[in-house]
Amino acid sequence: MQFFYKHSSGVSKKDIDKTAQRLTPYISRLNTVAQMQHYEDYESSINLPFDAAIHDAVLALKQKKTSQKLKYILIIGIGGSNLGAKAIYDALLGSTDVLEPDRFPKLIFADTLDPECANRLRAFLRTRIQNADEILVNAISKSGSTIETIAYTEFIAEILRERFKNTLERLVVTTDEGSQLWKEADKKKCSLLEIPQKVGGRFSVLSNAGLFPLACAGIDTSALLDGARKMRAKCLLSNLSENPAALSASILFWHYKRGICIHDTFLFHPELESLGKWYRQLLGESIGKEKNINGETVRAGITPTVSIGSTDLHSVGQLYLGGPKDKITTFIFAQSKEEVKVPKNQQFANLAPDIKEKSFHVIMKAIFDGVKVAYKNTGLPFMEIAFSEISPRELGAFMQFKMIETMYLGFLLNVNAFDQPHVEAYKSETKKILRSLS
Amino acid sequence: MQFFYKHSSGVSKKDIDKTAQRLTPYISRLNTVAQMQHYEDYESSINLPFDAAIHDAVLALKQKKTSQKLKYILIIGIGGSNLGAKAIYDALLGSTDVLEPDRFPKLIFADTLDPECANRLRAFLRTRIQNADEILVNAISKSGSTIETIAYTEFIAEILRERFKNTLERLVVTTDEGSQLWKEADKKKCSLLEIPQKVGGRFSVLSNAGLFPLACAGIDTSALLDGARKMRAKCLLSNLSENPAALSASILFWHYKRGICIHDTFLFHPELESLGKWYRQLLGESIGKEKNINGETVRAGITPTVSIGSTDLHSVGQLYLGGPKDKITTFIFAQSKEEVKVPKNQQFANLAPDIKEKSFHVIMKAIFDGVKVAYKNTGLPFMEIAFSEISPRELGAFMQFKMIETMYLGFLLNVNAFDQPHVEAYKSETKKILRSLS
Repeated sequence: MQFFYKHSSGVSKKDIDKTAQRLTPYISRLNTVAQMQHYEDYESSINLPFDAAIHDAVLALKQKKTSQKLKYILIIGIGGSNLGAKAIYDALLGSTDVLEPDRFPKLIFADTLDPECANRLRAFLRTRIQNADEILVNAISKSGSTIETIAYTEFIAEILRERFKNTLERLVVTTDEGSQLWKEADKKKCSLLEIPQKVGGRFSVLSNAGLFPLACAGIDTSALLDGARKMRAKCLLSNLSENPAALSASILFWHYKRGICIHDTFLFHPELESLGKWYRQLLGESIGKEKNINGETVRAGITPTVSIGSTDLHSVGQLYLGGPKDKITTFIFAQSKEEVKVPKNQQFANLAPDIKEKSFHVIMKAIFDGVKVAYKNTGLPFMEIAFSEISPRELGAFMQFKMIETMYLGFLLNVNAFDQPHVEAYKSETKKILRSLS
Repeated sequence: MQFFYKHSSGVSKKDIDKTAQRLTPYISRLNTVAQMQHYEDYESSINLPFDAAIHDAVLALKQKKTSQKLKYILIIGIGGSNLGAKAIYDALLGSTDVLEPDRFPKLIFADTLDPECANRLRAFLRTRIQNADEILVNAISKSGSTIETIAYTEFIAEILRERFKNTLERLVVTTDEGSQLWKEADKKKCSLLEIPQKVGGRFSVLSNAGLFPLACAGIDTSALLDGARKMRAKCLLSNLSENPAALSASILFWHYKRGICIHDTFLFHPELESLGKWYRQLLGESIGKEKNINGETVRAGITPTVSIGSTDLHSVGQLYLGGPKDKITTFIFAQSKEEVKVPKNQQFANLAPDIKEKSFHVIMKAIFDGVKVAYKNTGLPFMEIAFSEISPRELGAFMQFKMIETMYLGFLLNVNAFDQPHVEAYKSETKKILRSLS
């Protein structure tokens, strides 16, 4: 993964350096957290890729719970509990699941309580699963009390109980050690996986929350972690101009202070849309805060948007190029080695002579380069991430980069990047309503 | 479909009326267009649901081209050429395609030139299609010169040619009559469907562009059109307080003038995400304009975002409730009759006593109502759309409502809601690059 920003970010080197220098004490702090290799700080998620014990335990449980017969891993979880695993699965396999009906195992995600989707999932389980070994259920809830996750887990357990003995043997529960869910699942002798208490959901992709389902799906979690490890080293460098997380956070901060409050992540690969949504939570939930660290009302926040190239050029491209200059963009483009091209013998030869025999990759690169020229000509600020390929290693590097970038941005904005106090605002109202119906 | 805004939109009745009154001359104009029942105005898309000739021709071509053997309809198109059909297909069937591998026919969408996705699509066509009758390809490009669509059509035609005789017999081309693509396809005796010249892509869902693939997928296009017809009548009423499109446009405009430049469409059903993306293009591309009608530089635009309940409450809910007050929201919630509920006998009975034996619909409704209370308490403006069910009729009504709302909003903002001049900015750069590679 490479990060580019010069000549395009709209900020002078001097201004970036000045902003980035404010990060120096916090970079020191992250280095201290990194040396400790424990989970006692809110920043401790940066230690996950180095934790061989966690990874070994994941692989051992995978060994125990999966076989050649496994067809579906049903992930029950929402928000930070599933967005990381979904990002990586979709990037590598999931986005074309419908085109590969015989490729197993597949991950199936159950998050919100949509009646229509749940009904179809029930019919699916009743008709397509012949044997308990064909399915594994992983319920993931950090707090152990997420309404959607509890409801779905009970719903699925009931369906499986109709058909198989000892259904709880096919359930793995991932939660904070000591949560009520942990205690109940432990009583029933379910397999349990822990999320370190101070690692928040949106920073948990490299914990058991992400690693276990991904390993079960056959994804190379060693490469994922290795990519993250190498990127952590870069993102903790005190030499700011070599530190992509410090640079990106500084550029976002500089624009935010000038009223640019939308950050568009513009990914030129449709299979990366879920990766964009993972970052959407990370940025939105970490930085969107009513109060700063000192308790003053600030209503800080950058609205994350996710765009897909070239699809969204035909949708919101007009808005981006012609509308208000209220956005900063991070483009993401990956190299590809797939041999896919426009054939020599065309049915409609006069329509597009410029693309004859060109590979899809070359055409997409031309579109991407054309967009960058148009953004520059229009004076729209952007940064750029280049992947050498769409692989576990590059995805691990990117996610580690973004998690540290977000911590730096929280520090610059003087907000707590690790809590989410306002989520309670609707949850308590919902609880009141549910109780009134009991 | 019902529209609610009182006590929640943040605008007084007087202010809404004042704004809406400015629409009076344009409502008259739309009524004139409606009386003419032709396609000579940019607003003429409002006549599509009343055009029995188009619908009859669609059903006749469906009869000719499809049989019980049909498994896949491959839609090649991007932006306005596929977002409408995808919105409706995903809402009714597509979002759970992976859970229903034996339900046919399925729509498969090929839009951008992603090498990995194209490679998997090629493998799919080579291995899963045994007979030419199992597949139908519908290439859709209004201009007839969209690079991605031409490249994909040639790529797919080559794969099919390897395997079947007379592949062009399985290709239906939808484009402007007289486009270069029309002429070439006509020479080769392909089946042709027209998009009326003045109906832009983002307003074309109820033309052949949307109707043909949806009819082939078995969706009730009569009900879709009927929903749109009834809604058009409401949205052309000169009694503004009965006209949901005029009200919604006025509320969006009022907030825009006060610096609220993000419109979040917050749909409480994951299968409606593509519907949100269809509206994202409609609003983004119609209103995002550098110049107003008088040629003055205005850089107008409202940034559309799409959120899914309850999923995104666990992602960006914190930002929405705690962050900057820079958004207006339209919530969408549908009734459901699915018998899906939390079982009586729970595995983990102490975890969520409030939801025991409650239906998923009731829990989701409680979450939705909780969110509305939280938005009100925080002073966040919102409107609300209620669907009696997720059905072709309700979807047709909603889409007609939104298309007319967008026209009204364009009129209030004094911009041309029907062009997209800035898309050329990157296209011309891309062409230069492609030519330099030739």
